[in-house]
Amino acid sequence: MNVILVETSELDGTGAATMVGRRAAHIASVLKAAPGDTIRVGVLDGPFGLATIAAIDTHAVRLRCEFESVVPPRPPVDLLLAVPRPKVLRRLWAQLAALGVGRIIVTNAERVERNYFDTHVLTPECYRPLLIEGLQQARDTRLPLVSVHRQFRVLVEDQLDQLSDASVRLVADPRGSASVTAAVGRQPASRVLLAIGPEGGWNEFELSLLEAHGFQAVTMGSRTLRSDTACISLLSIVHSAINS
Amino acid sequence: MNVILVETSELDGTGAATMVGRRAAHIASVLKAAPGDTIRVGVLDGPFGLATIAAIDTHAVRLRCEFESVVPPRPPVDLLLAVPRPKVLRRLWAQLAALGVGRIIVTNAERVERNYFDTHVLTPECYRPLLIEGLQQARDTRLPLVSVHRQFRVLVEDQLDQLSDASVRLVADPRGSASVTAAVGRQPASRVLLAIGPEGGWNEFELSLLEAHGFQAVTMGSRTLRSDTACISLLSIVHSAINS
Repeated sequence: MNVILVETSELDGTGAATMVGRRAAHIASVLKAAPGDTIRVGVLDGPFGLATIAAIDTHAVRLRCEFESVVPPRPPVDLLLAVPRPKVLRRLWAQLAALGVGRIIVTNAERVERNYFDTHVLTPECYRPLLIEGLQQARDTRLPLVSVHRQFRVLVEDQLDQLSDASVRLVADPRGSASVTAAVGRQPASRVLLAIGPEGGWNEFELSLLEAHGFQAVTMGSRTLRSDTACISLLSIVHSAINS
Repeated sequence: MNVILVETSELDGTGAATMVGRRAAHIASVLKAAPGDTIRVGVLDGPFGLATIAAIDTHAVRLRCEFESVVPPRPPVDLLLAVPRPKVLRRLWAQLAALGVGRIIVTNAERVERNYFDTHVLTPECYRPLLIEGLQQARDTRLPLVSVHRQFRVLVEDQLDQLSDASVRLVADPRGSASVTAAVGRQPASRVLLAIGPEGGWNEFELSLLEAHGFQAVTMGSRTLRSDTACISLLSIVHSAINS
């Protein structure tokens, strides 16, 4: 953890909060903090700050926090993701939050197996703690917004404009010719919505529908990557292109 | 598997080979190939080709292969990697081969725990099949060369020039100021040697030694990533920068 995140509901009116469980253990055992020490904290979806250790024992840490006035901006990349295998998705949540995404729009596609939608991995009880773990790793406070959509066509035609205001829309597909860097470079400093298909790729209908709604097909080169590797790889390249 | 890789030792003089185990199961169950069908194959560290299914049953597949004359080039990125936690490294091998690396130079560093060197994960028996799995995913034939070095200083001072002829040397470090894209962009189409430190980063001595040996410190921005995520992310950005 490179920052300890606190929920608004954990703070009293004076900025005091009590940590138990993993965060308390991290403060005690990894940071080895003692009363009077200060540590980096943040409010989930709020500002960063510093906390003074008021009291500490093996079970609980009492913090007195002071926060900055500015809330960091949401990361400038949104993700449209065809549901990967549950085992893969479970591993991805923290990594996506660590890499930085504003919104994760999880969708169906022809090549997504139907039973993927019935898994625990798509419930907030599963993904919220994993996303927070990723934020604490990457030192961010902005929790990615997550929505799950079983009807791809309804999503793309009727809902996507409300979900993401990104001005650049990219879909990773071997049939694409432009590189991510070239596609983003034409509109620097924009928000990007990146669509990543299922293990077997988007079908013709899905790709056409995305292209009809402003998505430009971008290539990752000749190498075919596993979907989790592809997600990390593409998000990294998009962030790098936005920042360069 | 997007290509089936065959070892030279598995081929007889006429291009015939018999697959058993995972490759046979993949050809039978996933590709659902029948006698007379052709599938994509490659020789490990050799050329790509096509194979005709000569015979197939549930346990073995008999192939008749014809190979191209050209061997694909080694990927233009070498990796200098401080040993990550064994669990992380086990997951990384296939992903590194899939992303494309010419050579993986595994090294010690102050913040690497000593017992990491005693694990099975650093033996060819463990990593070779995982690297081949990554190549079959990414459709490449060139097996990354792997070497393991317990003495960081001896490696950097005396061995590195023989191990990698990359003209661009980069070290990922929060103290760096240039972006990967900017650093690679100054010498386009070069081979790159990328150094990635342990979970807690390189220490002062290690970073100075790398810089004294031509490594430029590059930043990944303000987000701190887990070492496996950082590896995939940085390798992707370097490949993207080389190709753009």
